[in-house]
Amino acid sequence: MDYAKQYQEYLARANQALEKACETFLPEESEVCRAARYSLLGGGKRIRAVLVLAVCDMLNGSAEAAEQFAAAVEMLHCYSLIHDDLPCMDNDDLRRGKPSCHKAFGESTAMLAGDVLLTEAFNVVANAPASPIVSVQAAKALGAGAGSHGMVYGQELDLKYEALAATEEQLRLIHRNKTGALINAAVQMGAAAAQANETQCKELEDYAFGIGLVFQIVDDVLDVTSTAEQLGKPIGSDSENGKTTFVTLYGAEGAMELAKKLNNETCASLHEEFGEKAAFLEQLAKELLVRRS
Amino acid sequence: MDYAKQYQEYLARANQALEKACETFLPEESEVCRAARYSLLGGGKRIRAVLVLAVCDMLNGSAEAAEQFAAAVEMLHCYSLIHDDLPCMDNDDLRRGKPSCHKAFGESTAMLAGDVLLTEAFNVVANAPASPIVSVQAAKALGAGAGSHGMVYGQELDLKYEALAATEEQLRLIHRNKTGALINAAVQMGAAAAQANETQCKELEDYAFGIGLVFQIVDDVLDVTSTAEQLGKPIGSDSENGKTTFVTLYGAEGAMELAKKLNNETCASLHEEFGEKAAFLEQLAKELLVRRS
Repeated sequence: MDYAKQYQEYLARANQALEKACETFLPEESEVCRAARYSLLGGGKRIRAVLVLAVCDMLNGSAEAAEQFAAAVEMLHCYSLIHDDLPCMDNDDLRRGKPSCHKAFGESTAMLAGDVLLTEAFNVVANAPASPIVSVQAAKALGAGAGSHGMVYGQELDLKYEALAATEEQLRLIHRNKTGALINAAVQMGAAAAQANETQCKELEDYAFGIGLVFQIVDDVLDVTSTAEQLGKPIGSDSENGKTTFVTLYGAEGAMELAKKLNNETCASLHEEFGEKAAFLEQLAKELLVRRS
Repeated sequence: MDYAKQYQEYLARANQALEKACETFLPEESEVCRAARYSLLGGGKRIRAVLVLAVCDMLNGSAEAAEQFAAAVEMLHCYSLIHDDLPCMDNDDLRRGKPSCHKAFGESTAMLAGDVLLTEAFNVVANAPASPIVSVQAAKALGAGAGSHGMVYGQELDLKYEALAATEEQLRLIHRNKTGALINAAVQMGAAAAQANETQCKELEDYAFGIGLVFQIVDDVLDVTSTAEQLGKPIGSDSENGKTTFVTLYGAEGAMELAKKLNNETCASLHEEFGEKAAFLEQLAKELLVRRS
């Protein structure tokens, strides 16, 4: 398997699915939808979309359904970034190296752009070319990952612990909800497109939360070791805000050690369940450790 | 049929379904969910929920499914009010006679409360005790009514024409999207719970947009003829903002004449399709004309 080539293929399919979703669900005549497109189509690694497609592929599922689910999870992720950047939240002016949505379109349009992306993400799932059983399964996965037992709860915890010193346990709880839950939604939507069984879903859940945590630990490290140009956003913001991170807990090296250890465990477990077919997902996990942005 | 008694029965079932949805989907330990509950459980006429239940009843559908759909549409409506009240939108301090969500909980918590209600509304639909076909149908109805071809588009148009003089045609387009689309979602979710046929759905769509427009015309009239105590919100805000309304176009009396005419047409058409069984929905339409708040 040529990992890089395979990733590019998934990425191209994800971007194509997003373009198609925009045509139907984010009509050009709406300024709010144009703002949504501005944020949605601005590039990015599309890790969540790639995960949907790769999991579906590994389990020989329906590529067509998975493509729409891939678009949906990226729309949902994008809404969370737009709302997160707003003045009443993190107040970030820059996202992926360009002005954040509210900087480009104003606050009310940006908020509505987030609202419309969230709504249309569920619309995309409901209208996917899949059996109703598969669609409902995917909608449940997306809803569970995005809502009060997932991402929104993570955002709340993140705001709550911004000013307080958090323990490792609290930090893990934040990341599990803020990042892990939506990564798990992506993975479970891929599994839904392949009508995976319960054992497979459970194993994939462990993988999702495992790589979600690794992703966040590396994020904490990059915040102190990378440059603003590489990241496309300001660096050092966590330490400036006095936030507890894995770096403040263990130092940059200690945090990377932890990430490597977690990653090895996650990959070994996945390999045990899916064997050689898990190669792409294992490599994806490993790439998270060496990413520069 | 005793209309008032029947309405109270539907209302009680809707409120019960909402309480139940809160237990599962808006857990107490989350401040964001407590803010969502504050706005969601603050009373109200629950017209949209009642419509879901009444339509399902008229077509002999599944009451259990309809109750969850009723909860979902009220959650969605509630999210739209919370976001609408935010400083970057209408900046309203009062809602249903008490402090609006951001006044009570702060801006970031209120925004997340809206986000969580929107997300969990779709979760409630996906987890309804219904066949996957019914759930997907209901999710499509909710998504279509709430998104870029419905309510969010209406909010955008409303902001856009706030400063501009609107024609009657533009005003109708705003209301069709801002109010009518979600009322139609409610009605179509009731129809989905009863697996209604296409002709029935089309007739119900006309009814939904018909009463949605009447509701808005009466709203415009109440804004100049009612008191703040009766409405539970400030009056005269439209004219202060120089907004075009049906009252600025036709005067209060002329607007009420138009509302009556539209209402008669809507009810006659509904009666033709559903006969005596439409009695409750016809009466509901008529009550919209004489409401005081």
